[in-house]
Amino acid sequence: MSLLKAFQWRYATKKYDVTKKLASAQLNDLLETVRLSPSSYGLQPYKLFVVKDLAVREQISQAAMGQPQILSGSHLLVFATETNLNEQSVSNYIDAAAVARKAPREALAPREAQINAAINKLSAEQRIEWGKRQTYLALGVLISAAAESGIDASPMEGFDPAQVNAILGLPEQNLTATVLTVLGFRAADDEFATFAKVRKDEAAIIAQR
Amino acid sequence: MSLLKAFQWRYATKKYDVTKKLASAQLNDLLETVRLSPSSYGLQPYKLFVVKDLAVREQISQAAMGQPQILSGSHLLVFATETNLNEQSVSNYIDAAAVARKAPREALAPREAQINAAINKLSAEQRIEWGKRQTYLALGVLISAAAESGIDASPMEGFDPAQVNAILGLPEQNLTATVLTVLGFRAADDEFATFAKVRKDEAAIIAQR
Repeated sequence: MSLLKAFQWRYATKKYDVTKKLASAQLNDLLETVRLSPSSYGLQPYKLFVVKDLAVREQISQAAMGQPQILSGSHLLVFATETNLNEQSVSNYIDAAAVARKAPREALAPREAQINAAINKLSAEQRIEWGKRQTYLALGVLISAAAESGIDASPMEGFDPAQVNAILGLPEQNLTATVLTVLGFRAADDEFATFAKVRKDEAAIIAQR
Repeated sequence: MSLLKAFQWRYATKKYDVTKKLASAQLNDLLETVRLSPSSYGLQPYKLFVVKDLAVREQISQAAMGQPQILSGSHLLVFATETNLNEQSVSNYIDAAAVARKAPREALAPREAQINAAINKLSAEQRIEWGKRQTYLALGVLISAAAESGIDASPMEGFDPAQVNAILGLPEQNLTATVLTVLGFRAADDEFATFAKVRKDEAAIIAQR
């Protein structure tokens, strides 16, 4: 499916077909696409939790106003953002870059200094906000990859981050839950599938200069 | 191109082929895909500026540390985020929803109240941050759509927002520049195309529960 057609087809699914699950290869392709998402400076300041365990999903559903798609979808993904981005994170990235590019680590020292200078300008709170933006970029990639493959997805912000953090033990990992996404296949009778999309007109959202 | 293959193929292009431009239909398909991006509550709190004018691009390039791809790429896009999200924005959305869904406006009053309750909890600054996250989701969709079509893209945060805001007259429109993206086609001799991608290992970025 071309991505434009895929975006005409997709919608925030409310009712999933509980009998249909993503095949492992489908899920792995989506996760690998997200892993390859670009991010500012390549730091990828996030982690993705794939929650299959129904007991954990039940807890998360309760932390998300009981939204039923959390239980009826095939998989629940929790996007978590790093809360402790620092020079060690940058050092880890530079280590990986030296290996991937078969470069001596010292050759990457100017890049390391440049990235550190940029993040050191940000307060702890600003770093988390910056990380959340990168997380949403990755979410946009996930939604695109799912739609292209005919997989339904429901991104969700309506949950209590403190509760989800506690359920998944995120603070101990210097992470905080940012956004959820359910993946699966729409139920044949999900009435939301028939609703017209509501989007701004082209003139309201795109300007030419 | 499947999106996974497209993400293996893409990279943040540094040197564009100045002789290759996107066809209007290619650009329009990308913009239409971004227009269809999902966003929280469907509010789409952003606007996309397509900058073709070379004099304007020259000014923006100066506000972005002279990054050459701003001038050598086919098109420059500026993603701007709304700075004045309020009950009027929600009312406009509900108006559009009533038309699109052929519903009486009063039937959507509960939804309007629910969205207003959510945004009224946020400070002015938090609303802008929330809007920037939605903007990055749309950026992820743009990068995906471009890659799928074999179009190169370079997202860029390294610019002075105040200068770009002044160049495009954004504050008067209650907008602020959030992220830039150059679109075009890589030059045959862009050495960055040959660099191995640096990404976290699967185990560092994906966890199963």
